[in-house]
Parts: sequence; structure tokens; C-alpha cells
Amino acid sequence: MKMPVGFEIAAATAGIKSSGRSDLGLIYSPFPLAWAMASTENLIKAPCVSRNRARYATGQPIQALAVNSGNANAGNGDQGIWDNEDFAGAVAAGLALPKVQDALTASTGVIGKRLPIELIREQIPDLAQQLGPDTNTFAEAILTTDTRPKQVAATLRNGARVVGIAKGSGMIHPNMATMLAFVMTDASLSQENLRRLWPRIVRRSFNQVSVDGDTSPNDMALLFASRQLNADPMEFAEALEAVCQKLAQKIAQDGEGATTLITVRVGGGRDEDQALAAARSIAASNLVKTAIHGRDPNWGRILTAVGASGAVSDLANLQIRLQGQAVYKGKPLPFKEVMLSEMLNASEVVIEVDLAAGEATGIAWGCDLTAEYVKINADYRT
Amino acid sequence: MKMPVGFEIAAATAGIKSSGRSDLGLIYSPFPLAWAMASTENLIKAPCVSRNRARYATGQPIQALAVNSGNANAGNGDQGIWDNEDFAGAVAAGLALPKVQDALTASTGVIGKRLPIELIREQIPDLAQQLGPDTNTFAEAILTTDTRPKQVAATLRNGARVVGIAKGSGMIHPNMATMLAFVMTDASLSQENLRRLWPRIVRRSFNQVSVDGDTSPNDMALLFASRQLNADPMEFAEALEAVCQKLAQKIAQDGEGATTLITVRVGGGRDEDQALAAARSIAASNLVKTAIHGRDPNWGRILTAVGASGAVSDLANLQIRLQGQAVYKGKPLPFKEVMLSEMLNASEVVIEVDLAAGEATGIAWGCDLTAEYVKINADYRT
Repeated sequence: MKMPVGFEIAAATAGIKSSGRSDLGLIYSPFPLAWAMASTENLIKAPCVSRNRARYATGQPIQALAVNSGNANAGNGDQGIWDNEDFAGAVAAGLALPKVQDALTASTGVIGKRLPIELIREQIPDLAQQLGPDTNTFAEAILTTDTRPKQVAATLRNGARVVGIAKGSGMIHPNMATMLAFVMTDASLSQENLRRLWPRIVRRSFNQVSVDGDTSPNDMALLFASRQLNADPMEFAEALEAVCQKLAQKIAQDGEGATTLITVRVGGGRDEDQALAAARSIAASNLVKTAIHGRDPNWGRILTAVGASGAVSDLANLQIRLQGQAVYKGKPLPFKEVMLSEMLNASEVVIEVDLAAGEATGIAWGCDLTAEYVKINADYRT
Repeated sequence: MKMPVGFEIAAATAGIKSSGRSDLGLIYSPFPLAWAMASTENLIKAPCVSRNRARYATGQPIQALAVNSGNANAGNGDQGIWDNEDFAGAVAAGLALPKVQDALTASTGVIGKRLPIELIREQIPDLAQQLGPDTNTFAEAILTTDTRPKQVAATLRNGARVVGIAKGSGMIHPNMATMLAFVMTDASLSQENLRRLWPRIVRRSFNQVSVDGDTSPNDMALLFASRQLNADPMEFAEALEAVCQKLAQKIAQDGEGATTLITVRVGGGRDEDQALAAARSIAASNLVKTAIHGRDPNWGRILTAVGASGAVSDLANLQIRLQGQAVYKGKPLPFKEVMLSEMLNASEVVIEVDLAAGEATGIAWGCDLTAEYVKINADYRT
């Protein structure tokens, strides 16, 4: 995939991951980038998140983002703060940026191990040399337990583009779980517009993904605009939402141990909050996830998850559909259990719920919970 | 185990469970029982919960409780309401109670299948005949995926007793998950006292258990007093808390697929709410559960779970201990990883967290998350 106009990108192998896979990525622009940020709500924040937030608060543009995988640099006390500053410093020096603050950082991987800053520092000059238009190696370098890179692009009518790259596989839950998402555009939009738009988009995309209900100290979704090409703001907003929702879907699809993408579409919500909450609650339920894994049309668990979310107004008219088959409307509906079970044996399962309370809709994405998830997370470090 | 003075108990096999195991239980008192109730916060409530709550609101005493396992009679629309009333009616008739409302009901099992009310009705006269002092068959009859019955008793200085019986194995999460708990006492306490005490006890016991983060429409914790023996109210409250906490622990220990009980003790909380929330968040984390299953001293996941609960005031002084070994205090502490991993290979793992924010404490109980959990829940109905 090609970067939008005004961006360069690169990746390298610094040796942070013991697997020997690439683990360092860099995004750079010769232009001051307008940007917007959403980040973890976990009170334990990695130094990269805290530092980027501080920069964000100044409203100043930035020019670079460096990302390492294999080490979250979280839970490391003051040492982690210094190491993160050194990381940014090395990037700013390697790119000859006017100020260290013009470089953002992001880290993902194991918590509580010191960041190998010397390995990173050694690699930065090479990384800066390799900057170019192609996103593929970067999309690989930011992965941890992900099995595949996640990239989505859209092109607007006048040629401006939106390119999104994300990672995330476990510790994935609404409200910015272990997920990194970077979206670049050459569309010309004011930073004010970007910052107004971004929370709304994140709320409908990355915050609606659940793999395991756990949230991480390192999550960030960053939006960068080089402002090189004109674009219609409404068209841009729609393209941005589509890109982010596709990235969110890819994250759920690649959930640790997952075999099936679960897409939950909720309609008839009193308001968007209610519809989003109901969808999230279903996508996050371990019992729904295991039922789908077992190809079991056990709608009782879906109903229960809706109830747990608080999004029930009109129980007598609440409807549930599984793969298009109506299974519940205020009471159990008759259906062919064996046939529906076979329909659940698919790479994507769609759960539809009508709350019968209004017009609002919401989508969420999850995946099935498998023995492989347990294996991956029981053996992650040992 | 023997019931307290003023209670009789029995169990039978009505054929609700396809396994042929016993599935119907009855508790009866010739005296009007003072009682207290806590129940599910899920908005999808089974008819037994709604009906018992309505009775509870009247403040009137009751004389009997019938419980069936194998069928939750939830999600069944109006039919479920009628079937539940028939269930209570059959019990009241079989015991010749003055009013149908003097009998409570509780159901647990599969959601969305009609309650086989005829099977139950046929069995009630026999059940009433078998009433006696021994709790063991009842404790068996209320089980679903539980692997063992859960009973705890305490005796006060003057001879009054507290006897608790519970079930719960999956769909277990704070705020009354699929769990039934019945506690009987012959101590003489006013209903007003019981009803003031019960929410406080439930909050510190049953609401601090998490197996899988899912909540159920059928949960109830009921406290019954026959008021036959004098008791010191403070001594009674302490005994009641101890009985309920031991039952909560037994539920976590018997979590679906579990091999290890996880006990989380949080100290240094600003207030009890904060300490309880932090403990719950750790006990409920899939990533903590899988790490313990893998005997991995991955304290980063514990720290992250505390952060997700919102219970972080003083990060620099926050401490974590695993099996007594300090692993984190504001930053990672050195420890022998192989030795600690071996210490985690135990039937109980104790996680201790000091929030360094005050004096309040809180306990929660969970269990490891295993491939067996996935298997049980993927195959539950099929």
C-alpha cells in the first residue's frame, strides 16, 4: 500500500523481539502534521501514551512517529519514562527534527521489561535512510501476537487518500485496548476539524472491538494529515469512518486464537450510546464467544448479554437474528436447530438485535473464544 | 449437614435434566420465615426472580422455597411467567400453605426452553413427603455444570446455626451471576435487621466472585431465619459473612474448567468500594486467569487490571505480591522467575495488592481460564 502524499514510512529489525521478526517502524513527514489522538482509558498508562498526550495538549503539530513492538515499556516506573524520552530523542536526532517534541512514540508488547533502548538507538539511522512510500514492512513491524498485518485505504473523489494501519490481537476490549492504529491522510483539513471528528470515529470503530475484555496501558489511535490535497469534509469523514471500521473488523478477525469473526449489529436503540453498549456487551461476552465457537445457536446468551448492558426498554418486542434467522421476539421463535448450527460454521457470524426502543444503530466486532486463546495467553512469556 | 431448627429440606428427580441426575429441591418451615433477598442486576430477569422480588417488596414472611435445575425458565416470554406461577402453585398445594405467595421459586439451567411443569407437578407430593433435616441431597439437586455440592455451616455460641447452600459454576461474575445461594438460620433476628445486613454481606461475598464475566437472569441469594434461638446480632453478622465468603470461594474453586482458585486480597484502598473494585477487576481478567493457568508470574496483567478498575491513586507506591513474593512496587522488583512459576503451580494462588491510598480492604475470588472452560461452553447444549 502507498502512503498518502506528504508521508514517508519505513521498518527495521532492532532485535527487541526474540523471534527475530521486524520490530521497529517509523512514519515521517517533511510537513508539520495536523493530528488527533485517542488513547487508553486504563489508569496505568505507558510513558509513550502520557508523553504523546502532553504533546497533544499543546496543540502543536508533529513530524514523526516511531513504533516498537516486542516491549510495551509499561509498568517500568521512572526508568520507563526516561527510556521513552531517549527513544523520542533518538528519532528526532536521526531525522534532524527541529525539536525532540516533534517526534511521537508508541510501544507494544510485554509489560514490565526494560525497553532495550540501545538496540533501538543503533537502528534509527538505518531506519531513517529507508524511508519511502510503501507501508507493508511497517504494517508487519508493529505486530505482536497478530497473525497478519492490517491495512485499509480509501481514495476520495479528488484523489486525496486515507490510509490506516493497525495492530491488535489480545488484551482487546472497548475503550482502547492493546491496539495501535495510525491513520494518515493528505486531505487538507484543519486540526480543529480533525480533533472534533476523531473521537466520534474512534467511538464507532476501535472502541467497538472486543477480543477478551482486557484493556492495555499502551493503546493509541492517531490520525495525521499532511494537508496536501483538497477534500470535501463530509466525504472525508465518511471515508475515515469506513477505514477505521474495516481496521476494527480486521483486529477482531485476527483475535488471539479466533476462527470466526463475530459482527454484532444493533438497531432500534433509544440513542447511539444504548445501541453501541448493547452491541459491545454481546461482542464481549465469553459465553456468546464460546457458543459461536461451538456452532451453538444459543440465543439465550445473547439476550442475557443485552440485559447485562442495561439496554433493554421493550423486552416484549426485542428481536434477535442469527445469520439472518429470527430466533427470538419477546419469546423463543421456532427454528431448525441443526440447520442454523451449520450456518454458524462460517468465517463470519452476524448477530442482529432490534431493541425496539428507537432509531439508533450500533455495530461491534468480536471473535470466538477458543482453546487456542487460552494456550496463547497461558504460554505468552514462558 | 443438618438444617437449623425450624427448617426441613428435600430433593427429588423430576426428569428435567436429561442426565437423570436429581433436579428438584425444596426448603420448608412450619414457621413464617423472616427473609432477605439479593438478586441479579441483569435487566433480563427470569420470572422466578421477578416474582420473588414482588413478594419481597410486600415485607411478608414466606414458608417455602422450591428450586429446579436443568432449566432456567428465562427468555420464555409470558409462557415463562405462567409456568413459574404454576410451579409455585404446585408447591403451595403440596405443602398445604395458606397462600400461593408463601412459596418462592428459583430456576437454573438452560435459557429459552419451556419449563417442563408437568414433570415438576408430578414430583411435588413425593418431595413434600421426604422433607427432613439433611441438606446433602438438596445441595446436589440444585447443581448444573458444578462438579461438587457447596455447603458451609457455622454455629454461634448459644447454639444457633447458620447453614448456607449454593450452586454456580459458569456465567459467574460480580453482581449476582448464575448463582443461587440459600442461607438458613434459626437465630432470632428481626426481618428489618436481616434486610439491612444482607446487601452488605452479599457485596463482600457473592458479588466478589468472577468465573467468566457473564451475568445471568436467574441469580438469587436468599437468607431465611426461623427465629427459634436467641443470638447476638454482631456474632451472627460475622458468622453470616464467613459462611457466605466460604460459599463464594467454593463457587470460584468449582468454576467451569478451573484447576486453580485465585484469591485476590486488596489493601490500602481509599474506601471499600475502591478495594472491592480493584480485587474484582483482577479476579475477572481473562489475561490474569490465563497467566495463572500457565503458571506465569506476569504481574503486568495484574497491574493493568487494577488500572482498568480505576482504582489507582498512588502508582509510585502500588505494590503487588504473588504467593507472598513481592514482584512490583512502583516499578518491577527482581525475583526468581522459575521458582515463582513453580509456586504458582498450586490449587490456590493468592494475589495481594496494596493500593497505598488508605486503609480499606477487599477480597475477590476467581479461577484460572482453561481450554476446558471453552470446551464446556462450546458444547453446553449440543
